[in-house]
Amino acid sequence: MRAVVVPEPGGPDALVVAELPDLTPGPGEVVLDVVATAVNRADTLQRMGFYPPPPGTSDVIGLECSGRVRAVGEGVEGWSVGDEACALLAGGGYAEQVLVPAGQLMRVPDGVPLEVAASLPEVACTVWSNVFMLAHLQPGETFLVHGGAGGIGTFAIQTAKALGARVFTTAGTPEKQQLCLDLGADRAISYRDEDFVTVVSEAGGADVILDNMGAKYLESNVSALATEGRLVIIGMQGGTRGELDINALLRKRGAVIATSLRARPTAEKSAICRAVEEHVWPLVSDGRIRTMVDAEFPLEEAGKAHALMESGDHTGKILLRT
Amino acid sequence: MRAVVVPEPGGPDALVVAELPDLTPGPGEVVLDVVATAVNRADTLQRMGFYPPPPGTSDVIGLECSGRVRAVGEGVEGWSVGDEACALLAGGGYAEQVLVPAGQLMRVPDGVPLEVAASLPEVACTVWSNVFMLAHLQPGETFLVHGGAGGIGTFAIQTAKALGARVFTTAGTPEKQQLCLDLGADRAISYRDEDFVTVVSEAGGADVILDNMGAKYLESNVSALATEGRLVIIGMQGGTRGELDINALLRKRGAVIATSLRARPTAEKSAICRAVEEHVWPLVSDGRIRTMVDAEFPLEEAGKAHALMESGDHTGKILLRT
Repeated sequence: MRAVVVPEPGGPDALVVAELPDLTPGPGEVVLDVVATAVNRADTLQRMGFYPPPPGTSDVIGLECSGRVRAVGEGVEGWSVGDEACALLAGGGYAEQVLVPAGQLMRVPDGVPLEVAASLPEVACTVWSNVFMLAHLQPGETFLVHGGAGGIGTFAIQTAKALGARVFTTAGTPEKQQLCLDLGADRAISYRDEDFVTVVSEAGGADVILDNMGAKYLESNVSALATEGRLVIIGMQGGTRGELDINALLRKRGAVIATSLRARPTAEKSAICRAVEEHVWPLVSDGRIRTMVDAEFPLEEAGKAHALMESGDHTGKILLRT
Repeated sequence: MRAVVVPEPGGPDALVVAELPDLTPGPGEVVLDVVATAVNRADTLQRMGFYPPPPGTSDVIGLECSGRVRAVGEGVEGWSVGDEACALLAGGGYAEQVLVPAGQLMRVPDGVPLEVAASLPEVACTVWSNVFMLAHLQPGETFLVHGGAGGIGTFAIQTAKALGARVFTTAGTPEKQQLCLDLGADRAISYRDEDFVTVVSEAGGADVILDNMGAKYLESNVSALATEGRLVIIGMQGGTRGELDINALLRKRGAVIATSLRARPTAEKSAICRAVEEHVWPLVSDGRIRTMVDAEFPLEEAGKAHALMESGDHTGKILLRT
């Protein structure tokens, strides 16, 4: 089978198509024939040699995919050869075949084309697990997500809005801000021209913040929290060490949580996938969450897909087709 | 009625007994004839002019007490004049009478003398709300509490142990370490001679840490957390601003929570009091949690009680009797 490999870490050109052996499922595993996979920021870091895959994981890049069941391992129930599925992966998605723990397979939401379903697992599982399972965003609460026009941002805005939250977001250009408003955001803040702390604080503060900037925004995020607010950090694009104003956090009785999806044990990922099927897929099927595919490339052009991701010019997800 | 007031912030001598008017309960309130109150570290800060009482609260110091119901306000159910009770207060405890929202009254645990019950509300509500309601310490998990020989420490060790956790603590002298072990701690770490991060990490890390040091221990506490560990900061004796290693926290999928009991709304305090009556009082009644009274002073000697608190020579709680 063909797969994208990285013989030497580097720029987008480091991605090379190679022939790898066919895969065989172990107990509790399924092999999918991949129809599409999607590009995540973490993929670009892995390509550059950072963010190595967890132990025991394929070193082929790719955190999500859609496809059809090719083979079913011992003890797997509920899935048969030929079934359509999408999957949350610890790696291995940029390939014609991928090995998946059965719990990380999800059915394709009604009404979503199979290849588009490849764009859903990472954003849906990230948003649901962090904003709802971990930070317990409630209807009527105020939610702030940074980078509202990105893959996670667009999904988070729509999910939070569908579930009754007031949604603030930050975005860098008027076009991106307009997209966020079109998706239902109550306020799209220009992080270039406005101070998000002021805007959000004047509105009463954020009960939950989903952050991908880390250190750069730590102090501002704590300032923007409401009483009993929860800051969830899932990315460190703005640095890894920042000063925490413990007194400010204590006065708000706030929480700073930092987490990642990829390293979680299979049992937790499976629980997240079940919750996503139950709570998120109905919102996708009835159109309250729009799938956001910006561009599609064949597997051979994975480098172009990475270059687009790194340009920051995309809004929504970038697909790779096998 | 007599009450301890602070005409001018200062040292222990700033505490002066004065005559204040009798209290009348408003709707939903109860007035207690105070039998005893207990000294908390926050009281000493308030005496020095820091940590002012929340708006609408008595400026008499005192966060907990025991006594008998003197008068019952409109709409209060379940309490009658003469009933014995202890109470979690936002202030006003150092006095012969105190006004209490009815939800913050608790019955006296079976077998505990009324005056000793004054030593329980702050530690019981602090430990239960933070370690169990907020950080969800589970049986079999590892718990670290700093300052194990103090009021909160002694209570936290016993509660966590009774509920099936493995308990690590820090303490400054061999005598205090021995006390912690006697109370059930699995390991009492000398913070002078040992590195608690090393000791706790070698044992697999702490699932929950209860911290009163703030900035000084922030980095070490994050280092000592286990995967999915929760650090709860309830004091800042070691400073208010510290560097947070977001990357370390993210790799552990950890949480840093900072909170205080005093500023919480009455509804939350009432919920905590109900949970304490249900989950903690049975452990006190059957002796699995020992009440820890170090010394008693009459109200007139509140200054001596504060001096003892500030000396750090006490183990367990310091009572004031009316």
